[in-house]
Amino acid sequence: MSKTLIIGASGQIGKLITKTLIETQEDARALVRDKSKLDDLKDSELEIFEADLEKDFSRAFDGIDNVIFVAGSGASTGPDKTLLIDLWAAKKSVDYAQKANIKKFIMVSSIGADDPDAIESDIKPYLVAKHLADQYLMASGVPYIIVRPGPLTNDAGEGKITIKRPSSREEMAIPRADVAKSVVFLLSKEDLNDKIFELFGGTYDVDNVLV
Amino acid sequence: MSKTLIIGASGQIGKLITKTLIETQEDARALVRDKSKLDDLKDSELEIFEADLEKDFSRAFDGIDNVIFVAGSGASTGPDKTLLIDLWAAKKSVDYAQKANIKKFIMVSSIGADDPDAIESDIKPYLVAKHLADQYLMASGVPYIIVRPGPLTNDAGEGKITIKRPSSREEMAIPRADVAKSVVFLLSKEDLNDKIFELFGGTYDVDNVLV
Repeated sequence: MSKTLIIGASGQIGKLITKTLIETQEDARALVRDKSKLDDLKDSELEIFEADLEKDFSRAFDGIDNVIFVAGSGASTGPDKTLLIDLWAAKKSVDYAQKANIKKFIMVSSIGADDPDAIESDIKPYLVAKHLADQYLMASGVPYIIVRPGPLTNDAGEGKITIKRPSSREEMAIPRADVAKSVVFLLSKEDLNDKIFELFGGTYDVDNVLV
Repeated sequence: MSKTLIIGASGQIGKLITKTLIETQEDARALVRDKSKLDDLKDSELEIFEADLEKDFSRAFDGIDNVIFVAGSGASTGPDKTLLIDLWAAKKSVDYAQKANIKKFIMVSSIGADDPDAIESDIKPYLVAKHLADQYLMASGVPYIIVRPGPLTNDAGEGKITIKRPSSREEMAIPRADVAKSVVFLLSKEDLNDKIFELFGGTYDVDNVLV
């Protein structure tokens, strides 16, 4: 069975992904800075790896087949952390993944990361960081999937999405639970790689559109 | 005669470079956000191009042969500007340079940009930005020179440098005037490209060590 490293497992989407992998009995290692943030999961089979993403965390990749990078992943952290986590820790993760011969690297990116200059926005530094991290992954040779969800909500996930960009910003919203569901589904598709999916709330089942 | 674009011509090093190019009657275009910052140079032959580096500034490259990127270039600006100027505007400059078939792109980088993880420092976000901008330039195919000066001072320049990293941080300091002098010298060396020079105050003439 293949083993998956979740980088940023204590974040909102990261924890939803981690819980799903536990439920489906996937072999997983959760990388977090502070393991107390996963106290609610500590009785599970989950392997927890404590590390600081601002330091060397290459050992977290030992024996790993797949990587999900969902650290940082918020426009609301300060721009210094945007540079050090969303961009630099992502870049280092890709370097480590390359050395560890990772078979699939799923990057949780953001809508707008394709073209940070397209709109004037306060979150432009964040979009620049995500854009460059995505580009670095794509150029690395590591098999990748990049997902770029629209504005995130805490609504209950219904597993219904679309990958076609809606015309209005209101329609772009997607529950975090459905982003997590999409990521876990993409993890299961061994032969599906080197794709970018934008993700929005919609009417299609995940397994019908993520192909 | 070849024409040089100075990106960030109103900064401290940028203005020293620009003044020297005026004195030596080089054909130059100074890119600044606010041309009033070059009021002291306005009676010269200098062409001033006003543009915002956070927007599209590709037209500044029309008819240009060489580029000097010295915008931002300070660890004391906020990390949002570090991302948007030192990294993103540098990346866009490299893209524009590629399209404009630029013959030489001189990037003013920083000591420490080779390995941002090497030291724990408050300026790490800045070093990450400079590192990634340098890497982007090096991978672009545009002929480049990268200079990485030590801690900058406002001492009078004596034109004496060394490119060998001293053992103590105190010895790494270099006057901005000597960085400017080094950049102008490197600009004149048409056949010298695809090199990285660390720059420190020293005892050698610029033209003896920058080879």
